[in-house]
Amino acid sequence: MYHSRGVLWKSSLVPLARRIDPLRRHRCFSSTAVAHRGWDRLPASVRVVEVGARDGLQNEKTVVDTAKKIEFINRLSGTGLRTIEATAFVSPKWVPQMGDHKEVMAGIDRRQGVTYPVLVPNLKGYEAARAAGATEVNIFTAATESFCQKNINCSIDESFDRFRPIFEHAAADGIRVRGSCSVVLGCPYEGAMEPSQVVPVVRRLLEAGCYEVSLGDTLGVGTAGHADRLLQALSAEGLPFERLAMHCHDTYGQALANILTALQYGIAVIDSSTAGLGGCPYCKGALGNVATEDVLYMLHGLGIHTGVDLDGVIDAGAFMSEVLGRPSVSRAAKALLTKRGEGG
Amino acid sequence: MYHSRGVLWKSSLVPLARRIDPLRRHRCFSSTAVAHRGWDRLPASVRVVEVGARDGLQNEKTVVDTAKKIEFINRLSGTGLRTIEATAFVSPKWVPQMGDHKEVMAGIDRRQGVTYPVLVPNLKGYEAARAAGATEVNIFTAATESFCQKNINCSIDESFDRFRPIFEHAAADGIRVRGSCSVVLGCPYEGAMEPSQVVPVVRRLLEAGCYEVSLGDTLGVGTAGHADRLLQALSAEGLPFERLAMHCHDTYGQALANILTALQYGIAVIDSSTAGLGGCPYCKGALGNVATEDVLYMLHGLGIHTGVDLDGVIDAGAFMSEVLGRPSVSRAAKALLTKRGEGG
Repeated sequence: MYHSRGVLWKSSLVPLARRIDPLRRHRCFSSTAVAHRGWDRLPASVRVVEVGARDGLQNEKTVVDTAKKIEFINRLSGTGLRTIEATAFVSPKWVPQMGDHKEVMAGIDRRQGVTYPVLVPNLKGYEAARAAGATEVNIFTAATESFCQKNINCSIDESFDRFRPIFEHAAADGIRVRGSCSVVLGCPYEGAMEPSQVVPVVRRLLEAGCYEVSLGDTLGVGTAGHADRLLQALSAEGLPFERLAMHCHDTYGQALANILTALQYGIAVIDSSTAGLGGCPYCKGALGNVATEDVLYMLHGLGIHTGVDLDGVIDAGAFMSEVLGRPSVSRAAKALLTKRGEGG
Repeated sequence: MYHSRGVLWKSSLVPLARRIDPLRRHRCFSSTAVAHRGWDRLPASVRVVEVGARDGLQNEKTVVDTAKKIEFINRLSGTGLRTIEATAFVSPKWVPQMGDHKEVMAGIDRRQGVTYPVLVPNLKGYEAARAAGATEVNIFTAATESFCQKNINCSIDESFDRFRPIFEHAAADGIRVRGSCSVVLGCPYEGAMEPSQVVPVVRRLLEAGCYEVSLGDTLGVGTAGHADRLLQALSAEGLPFERLAMHCHDTYGQALANILTALQYGIAVIDSSTAGLGGCPYCKGALGNVATEDVLYMLHGLGIHTGVDLDGVIDAGAFMSEVLGRPSVSRAAKALLTKRGEGG
């Protein structure tokens, strides 16, 4: 079905590199691929996509002052993080926390080498993001119809209808589009996910023109075993793992084990949220995104290069935790702050 | 140096099976072994060693009523757990929480098929444990001299001197001895551990006659990368992985990733503590042992058999958390309790 989306590639708005179906070279492996994963597949370096200022704060009850958000983002960009999700161009009526998106984009220091993607739900959001100087936008769909309806108020098909003009304009504007697929391991409405339900949505996002697709365990309910089965299926379908990212929540404490699993498939882009900011309004009991500090601690311990200064991220997390008036949920941050206290 | 401990094997007190050096058959691989680890090494089943009632409670400030401890252990033994560390035969002067060891051992229901190991620091403790009906004892040493001195007030060599009579008596009494090696990944006094410092102590515990040795990341500071290097070294030395257990604390949030690493070496015995009870009095900021609930959630998700009812463990953890007047630190338990609430 999703092959009909090939219409997207015909447009002269799509740059040459994109007109070559990015999946074609992988398709030849589809039927014969045996998923290989293991310690020898660990990437040498990982790009950590910091989502605390958007995905994190969006799900925090306390509305944070614009100036504090700007300071948070500026602190983060000083740590070596190269991708910092900054805000969402959604209606303030639906998400009051993101109502200051224009001011945030205008206020942050645009550090060279750092990208500040913003969430856009539709063309209107895209236009506003572009006007605010966004160079990368993030679009969201879900692996289940129920979650898609609840989260973005449309069917999965309709979500792709909304994305089409975004891709067209983004190509013309030289703006990159990143895709996120929610509830890839478990859905609050439909339960545990079969990989066969997830693979087509991920493929469709890639084929539609996302330069990268983030696999979201929005509920934080998945285990390493479940993540392994999903990644097996994605691998068997020949999807390009160099264009996949892992996005875990730590609700069941499984996030780092799931990320270790993704790394063992060679996935080299990990979403995380400083201080573990966030949660999911439609997932009762869901903790925030996995903490950037915990992820960095593991990655560095695995000898994987990130270019990010963990201490700087801890400082930024401590700053935002103080703003929110609640402790960080990052265990590594708490332990290292305690250790610092010991050292004087 | 530790080969001189071979003296232990001469005694007629040591049963035949033990007189055959249990490491000999592995030694032939020592020089050529290439550590193999990966998803195909995951064990089909895992024995979870529940340490909440001893290692957990011993490090909780609130002294718990004996009757509550007994109820906790009885609840745990009803979940399918086969090994439940029950108490410690140490001086009440040093560890008031364990002062009721005799009463605990007398009060618990001894369920068939369940072993209730107890910690013994020396022969005196061993004799008291035996008199109280213990069928398995746990001895402790450490990978560093500093931690050994601080924890059990003697050098590593002296700790083995204390163990010698315990092994002799245990063999005669038909009591099994389990060994624990603390601070295998990091020490609060000596920092990150080199595997070369740890391997000899683990080997020595095995050679001394421990049927199983638990590798303790007491500080919870290790990462999957560090655990991997230690396990590589143990494997290269030909140590028998079917006699090794992994014991993680979750201070830095790394425990499950480290356990996943151990499982990928075929380690099939995991220590954990219901509700994440515990900590380490000599490790400032150290969180408790990894929560049994989080471990079971991962193991079951990996399709690994444990024979343990997660819901029952959650109930036991909720019971003890209420006794202690503080929430569980198990993320899986919190999430599943929230979910139960949702379901009515």
